[in-house]
Amino acid sequence: MTIPARQGAGRPAKAARPKARLPKGLRDVGAAEVRALDRMLRTIRDVYELYGFEPLDTPVIEYTDALGKFLPDLDRPNEGVFSFQDDDEQWLSLRYDLTAPLARYVAENYDTLPKPFRRYQTGPVFRNEKPGPGRFRQFVQFDADTVGTPSVAADAEICMMAADTMEALGIARGDYVIRVSNRKVLDGVMEAIGLGGDENAARRLTVLRAIDKLDRLGLDAVRLLLGPGRKDESGDFTRGAGLDHEQIDRLIDRITTGIAKGGLPPGPAIEQEGLEELFALQALVRDAGYDDSRISIDPSVVRGLEYYTGLVFEAELTFDTTDEDGRTVRFGSVGGGGRYDGLVARFRGEAVPATGFSIGVSRLYTALSQLGALKTDEADAPVVVLVMDRNRVTDYQRMTFALRRAGIRAEMYLGTSGMKAQLKYADRRGAAIAVIQGEDELKRGEVTLKDLIEGARLSAEIADNVEWRTGQPAQVQVPEERLIEACRDILARHRS
Amino acid sequence: MTIPARQGAGRPAKAARPKARLPKGLRDVGAAEVRALDRMLRTIRDVYELYGFEPLDTPVIEYTDALGKFLPDLDRPNEGVFSFQDDDEQWLSLRYDLTAPLARYVAENYDTLPKPFRRYQTGPVFRNEKPGPGRFRQFVQFDADTVGTPSVAADAEICMMAADTMEALGIARGDYVIRVSNRKVLDGVMEAIGLGGDENAARRLTVLRAIDKLDRLGLDAVRLLLGPGRKDESGDFTRGAGLDHEQIDRLIDRITTGIAKGGLPPGPAIEQEGLEELFALQALVRDAGYDDSRISIDPSVVRGLEYYTGLVFEAELTFDTTDEDGRTVRFGSVGGGGRYDGLVARFRGEAVPATGFSIGVSRLYTALSQLGALKTDEADAPVVVLVMDRNRVTDYQRMTFALRRAGIRAEMYLGTSGMKAQLKYADRRGAAIAVIQGEDELKRGEVTLKDLIEGARLSAEIADNVEWRTGQPAQVQVPEERLIEACRDILARHRS
Repeated sequence: MTIPARQGAGRPAKAARPKARLPKGLRDVGAAEVRALDRMLRTIRDVYELYGFEPLDTPVIEYTDALGKFLPDLDRPNEGVFSFQDDDEQWLSLRYDLTAPLARYVAENYDTLPKPFRRYQTGPVFRNEKPGPGRFRQFVQFDADTVGTPSVAADAEICMMAADTMEALGIARGDYVIRVSNRKVLDGVMEAIGLGGDENAARRLTVLRAIDKLDRLGLDAVRLLLGPGRKDESGDFTRGAGLDHEQIDRLIDRITTGIAKGGLPPGPAIEQEGLEELFALQALVRDAGYDDSRISIDPSVVRGLEYYTGLVFEAELTFDTTDEDGRTVRFGSVGGGGRYDGLVARFRGEAVPATGFSIGVSRLYTALSQLGALKTDEADAPVVVLVMDRNRVTDYQRMTFALRRAGIRAEMYLGTSGMKAQLKYADRRGAAIAVIQGEDELKRGEVTLKDLIEGARLSAEIADNVEWRTGQPAQVQVPEERLIEACRDILARHRS
Repeated sequence: MTIPARQGAGRPAKAARPKARLPKGLRDVGAAEVRALDRMLRTIRDVYELYGFEPLDTPVIEYTDALGKFLPDLDRPNEGVFSFQDDDEQWLSLRYDLTAPLARYVAENYDTLPKPFRRYQTGPVFRNEKPGPGRFRQFVQFDADTVGTPSVAADAEICMMAADTMEALGIARGDYVIRVSNRKVLDGVMEAIGLGGDENAARRLTVLRAIDKLDRLGLDAVRLLLGPGRKDESGDFTRGAGLDHEQIDRLIDRITTGIAKGGLPPGPAIEQEGLEELFALQALVRDAGYDDSRISIDPSVVRGLEYYTGLVFEAELTFDTTDEDGRTVRFGSVGGGGRYDGLVARFRGEAVPATGFSIGVSRLYTALSQLGALKTDEADAPVVVLVMDRNRVTDYQRMTFALRRAGIRAEMYLGTSGMKAQLKYADRRGAAIAVIQGEDELKRGEVTLKDLIEGARLSAEIADNVEWRTGQPAQVQVPEERLIEACRDILARHRS
C-alpha cells in the first residue's frame, strides 16, 4: 500500500514532485537558537512576572475588522496583512502585532477584567511585506501592557521595567538607554506651525515618520523629508511634508534642544501638558534610582506609529556594531512603546487609556549574540551509545536507560550504519560523549568513552595527523559499572 | 489629535464600530491556563531532551504544495486547511500538523542533517473545519520524531518515551497504556480478503476509519460501517465499505483476537512481517522494563491516517470520565503516532523511513485537570501596594521596588480609584496580599498587610457578616521596616 501523491487544487494528478522549500521571508530555527531564545524569553518573562504582569495567549487568527489597521510605516492601508475568507465569507487575518488583539480582548472582556489590566504576551506575528535582511514575514514580539489607567506612574513603571529587562538579559548599564519623549510635545509644535486639525492628519504622519529617521539618516536628510522631499542613494525619491524653512526650523529646534524643567518658553497647552507628563515621569524614575544614564528624556523620539497619544520611548542599545554597508553604527532600538489611549475606544466608544512596551525578539537576540550575552551550555550535549553488535541491542539499550535514569541526556544510535558512520553521526549531532563497547571491551567488562568536545578541541590543536591517530587522545576505558560516574565526570569538566 | 477610526477595505469611512469578538473555533487562554500549560509543556520537553531529541521551530506558514494533504478524517481533499495567495500568486497555507513541515524540513536539509535526525517541536496548528465541543480551529500539538531509520528500536524508543511522558506528567501507572499495533497486519488481512491493489485504496481507507471507531461506537456499529453503512442517532447516514459477512468476520477476528508470539496461523507475507515487527518491539520494551500494563499489543489500533506504513500506537488514558452525553466512558487517547516511511519521499523520490509521536496538548491538559495533576501555586500571586494618598506615590513605589528586589512579585496600584475599588482590584486580580499605609499607619511607622487568600477562605466560612466586618481577620500591622519579612511569612504559609 503506497501513499497516493495527492496534489493541491487545480494541479494535474501526475504533477512533478513538490520542491521542499520555504516561502520567502520565513525561516526555520535550529536547536541552538531555540534553546537560547527560550532562555532569553524566560528571563524577560521573569522580570514581567516580578512586576506583577500576568500572561495571556490570544490566537494567531482574528477578524480583519477587529484588528484594524495600525501598521507602522505602511502607506497602503489594505496591504501588509495576511488575510483570507472564512467559509461564511467573513475576512480573517493573521495578527500583525500583539497590541491590536489585546485591544480586542480588553473590549470583549471589559466588565470582568481587573482594571488596570496588566498582561504580557509573546508569540509570532505576521507581515505580508517584502522581506529583506533581518526583515521577516513571521517574527516574534514580546509585549507588556497596562490597560485602563491614565496614570504617569504606569508609564514610568513600563520604562523602568524595560531598563530592568535589559540588565536581566546581561546588557551592562551604559550599554543601553531608555529614551523617552511625549507625543504631545511634538503635537504642540505641529499645532503651532499650522499642522493642527483633522485635515492635516496625513501631513502630521509624514512629519513623524521623517523625524523617526533622524538616527538612521541624520539631520540633513530629515530636513529634506520635512521639506520638498529626498532622493536616496539608490535614486528613489521620497515625497516630503512640504513645510517651509521656518516650520522646519521650529520642529528641528524642538527635537534637538534638551528639555529641562522650568527652562522652556511657554508654548501651546498641549505641548505644556506633554512636558508636565515628562517631568512627572522623570521624578518618579529618579526617585526609584533610575538616573539619566538609564532613562533619559530625548525629544527626538517619536516612533512612527500614529496611534500613540502620550509617552513614546525606545529601548536603545548604545554599543557599536557594523551595519549592512560595513559602517560602524550604534546598535540602536530593540524595542519601544508608549501610551495609546484610543485603541480600545475603536470598539467601545469611550477611551480606555493604555501604555505598553514591545520587544523585537529577533533583533534583541542578534544584539545579545554580538555582546556574547547568550548563555549556552555544552553539557546540554547528549551521550550517544554506539551499536557495535546488532545482536546486542538490548545491552546498549540498557546502558542508555541507565544513563537517562541518572538524569543524563542519552540516546542509543538508531540507524543501521557501521562504527565510522556512527561516530560521524555523534559528531554532527553535537554529542558530548560516545560510549563504545565492542568485542574487546565486552571481554574485559569495560566501556570506552570518547570525549568528543575535548577531542574536537585537540584535533584543532594537533597538526600532526599521525600523532592524532595513534595517540587516541580524549578517550578512556572504564569498567562498565562505572559508566554513569565516568560520564558525569566528563560532563562536569565541560560544564565549568 | 485623535486617532482617525480607519476601517477595512470596502467599508464606508463612517461605518459602525467593529464588534470585539473572536472567530468561531478560536479561544483566548488566560493566565492560570498559560502557566499550567507552560509547566506541562516543560515536563514533556524535559523527557524528550533526556532521550536526546533536539528542538526545532518551523514557521506557521508553508507552501500549500509542500504541506500536501494528509489530514485525518477528511473526505474533501482540498478543504480543512487555511490557505491564501502570496503576492506572486503562489498558494500558502497554515500548517495543519507538525509532521508535514518536518518532512519539508528534512527534504530541504537532507545532506547536512545528522541521520537519524531526531527532533521535537511544539506549537499551534490550524484546521479550517467546523468547530465543536473540544474541537478548535487553532490548537497545540507536541511532536517528537526520529527520521532516517527503519529500525524497530526507534519505534520501541518512541513508545517507551510516550509511557515515560505520561508518568512524568503525574499520570499513575495503570491510568495509562500505550496500545501498539502494526499497519502491515491489517494490510495483510485486507489483501487476503481481496482489498489489495491501488484500485482499492479508497475502500481500504474506509475500512481503517471504520475500525478506528471501535472504541467510541462499539462492535455492532463497526460491522455496519464495514458492510452496508450506518445511520447514527441523529439520523445521518454514513456509507459503509460494502464488505460481505465473511470479509467482515475475518477483519473483526483479527482486531479482536489477541496476538501472541507463535500462536498464529500463517497468513500473507505482509501480515507476517507486521507481526515480526510487533514481537521485536515487544522484546525490546520488555527488556527495558516496560511490561504489558504499560505498553501492550492491541490489533484494534489503526489510527485514521492513511500515511502510516508500520507501527501505529495510541497513548490512552484508562480512567473513567463523563462524555458529552453524561455517560461514563474511558478518557481515551491523548496522543499517538507510528511509522510513516513515505512523507519525505514525496519530495525526494527515495523513501526516508520515519517514526514519531504527537500529543494533543489541549486534550492532555483536560485529562490532567480531571486527575488533579496540574500543579498550581497560590504563592505565585502578587503583592499589591495600595495608593492611599496620591501625594505619596513615591513612598508606595519605594515599597513596591523593595519587595521586587527581595524577589517578591509586587505591583503598586496604578489606577485612580479609592481604597474600596483598590481592594476589589486586588481581589479580582488574584493578589495574595494587599499592603496598606494610610494616615494612621504612617503616624505609627507601620503598614497593614491584608492576607487575601486567608481572607477569602475565612469569608467563605464565616456566616455572620457583622462578625466578619468587625473582627478584621486575616490582617496584621507590622513596622514598615518589617514589610518584606512579613510578606515572606504570609506567602510561605500559603506555599506549604
